[in-house]
Amino acid sequence: MLDVCLPGTGGMIPLPNRWLTCCWIEYQGAAVLIDCGEGTQIAIKKAGLKPSRLELLLITHFHADHVAGLTGMLLTLANSARGADQPLTIAGPPGIGRIVSALTIIAPRLPFPIEIIELSWERGGMPQKIEKAGLTVTALPLRHGMLCLGYRTELFRKPIFSPQKAAALDIPVKMYKVLHAGETVTLEDGLTIRPEQVLDGLRKPISVCYFTDTRPFDTMADFAYNTDLLISEGMYYDEQMRGKIEEKNHMLFTDSARIAAKSGAKRLWLTHYSPALERPHDGIRVAQKIFPDTVTAHDGIAITLE
Amino acid sequence: MLDVCLPGTGGMIPLPNRWLTCCWIEYQGAAVLIDCGEGTQIAIKKAGLKPSRLELLLITHFHADHVAGLTGMLLTLANSARGADQPLTIAGPPGIGRIVSALTIIAPRLPFPIEIIELSWERGGMPQKIEKAGLTVTALPLRHGMLCLGYRTELFRKPIFSPQKAAALDIPVKMYKVLHAGETVTLEDGLTIRPEQVLDGLRKPISVCYFTDTRPFDTMADFAYNTDLLISEGMYYDEQMRGKIEEKNHMLFTDSARIAAKSGAKRLWLTHYSPALERPHDGIRVAQKIFPDTVTAHDGIAITLE
Repeated sequence: MLDVCLPGTGGMIPLPNRWLTCCWIEYQGAAVLIDCGEGTQIAIKKAGLKPSRLELLLITHFHADHVAGLTGMLLTLANSARGADQPLTIAGPPGIGRIVSALTIIAPRLPFPIEIIELSWERGGMPQKIEKAGLTVTALPLRHGMLCLGYRTELFRKPIFSPQKAAALDIPVKMYKVLHAGETVTLEDGLTIRPEQVLDGLRKPISVCYFTDTRPFDTMADFAYNTDLLISEGMYYDEQMRGKIEEKNHMLFTDSARIAAKSGAKRLWLTHYSPALERPHDGIRVAQKIFPDTVTAHDGIAITLE
Repeated sequence: MLDVCLPGTGGMIPLPNRWLTCCWIEYQGAAVLIDCGEGTQIAIKKAGLKPSRLELLLITHFHADHVAGLTGMLLTLANSARGADQPLTIAGPPGIGRIVSALTIIAPRLPFPIEIIELSWERGGMPQKIEKAGLTVTALPLRHGMLCLGYRTELFRKPIFSPQKAAALDIPVKMYKVLHAGETVTLEDGLTIRPEQVLDGLRKPISVCYFTDTRPFDTMADFAYNTDLLISEGMYYDEQMRGKIEEKNHMLFTDSARIAAKSGAKRLWLTHYSPALERPHDGIRVAQKIFPDTVTAHDGIAITLE
């Protein structure tokens, strides 16, 4: 089970009634946060989430609305008695280390260690993987004028274990866990049991994909292939804004809906609305015509993916 | 007339129901902001104030709850079409230039110029004065472990002009303004008129004093002498917190009330409450016993001083 929440859904500027876009993904009490603009630490509390659970902070890019809240977040973690035994990993495009150093000029003595991961990839190859909080994260370079990363966060699950098959083979219950973890065991009578003998098929991983800020392009649908939840930006829904949106390297509702449809995503949450877009839900139909399972996300929207 | 507002009244951490401490002082459409923690730009909008009017940003010290919102504020000014002809002055303790440089790593191209003033003073002498937005600001070094400044913002007003005295001397109306501004004029018949001949006494300046974060000490009352509004921190009201408050270099409600009483201030607004102090008003009596005109300020509290 993966709990996903968007504490904020706004773009560019934090507003009195809309926090800046970010995404909280929690698995078994450990959390990943994507982006941390001004006020994100407040939005997280307002959404009822626990900052102390944060293990991995992913930054998409270095525009202020995605990263200016970093120092406040780190100090709040420090105030919540996070100690030397609870490191925080911060990952992002190359340069993230320099950004963290500069922004923490006003937080010089944090009581917990920070591990920096600058994401890199071979030309045409797979991006570097991060394994944290029980989850696997991969990144895709987007198209936004400055280097911006899309993220796929995935929970890989153990195959389905069959107690019936195990009982039929007279395997002691204490060995179920070992077999389920993929190890071969030898019983007291010398019989060797392989995991395949007690498994009942694979379970599909659970995944969340996150795209903002970018122009759309084909590889995005491949990267988000069959995802359980695609979170993707919709600055405006009005097609008359297309010129402006292309110039600023962002996406309309329909751009994200097309990616969702092509990727085979189960559902699409639109986010990162322009401050000028007061009622995003008014534009839901233009997206749903292309991809019916579209939701115009609002601050605090949450789902448990199973 | 001086309009004063506290968009936020919290200390240390921004909360869903309380913005971080800051103070907005506006005179004839030009504004001074004291401190800019995370979320201050949102608090200002929520209080109905216009960020575009900002001419002078004063920073008390470099703890994050007083300065982490600086980048977001600058970008919001940039988004409100502030151009090259509208510089912003940022003043604070020595080092403020370095802090602004570091924090603006994520806002590298602002469309308006920033003027930095690093406040300094001779040992035992008067602090450096700033004249901006029609107001005069002086600073006092406080006692907070790191260098922290208290600010006195003052509107010096022209003396009272007497149209009766001017009419009795047959002075043309077009010369009233010149005389009121303090210049001597010569009439067509060669008669010289000095300003004193048409004035009716001086008008007391209007002032606002701002103290946070600090331990109390005697000079503070001198610095706030006869002020119209003393804004001063009260982290807690419970005297049992005295040990903790002294250790952390802050003030209790009673500390600020004593300064108010000694200074001859007209009124006291308490602010910069601990996140643990949910209902500051519950402690109003301990302060009012020492200084009756005490108010436990809340986010958005405003007054027009005349």
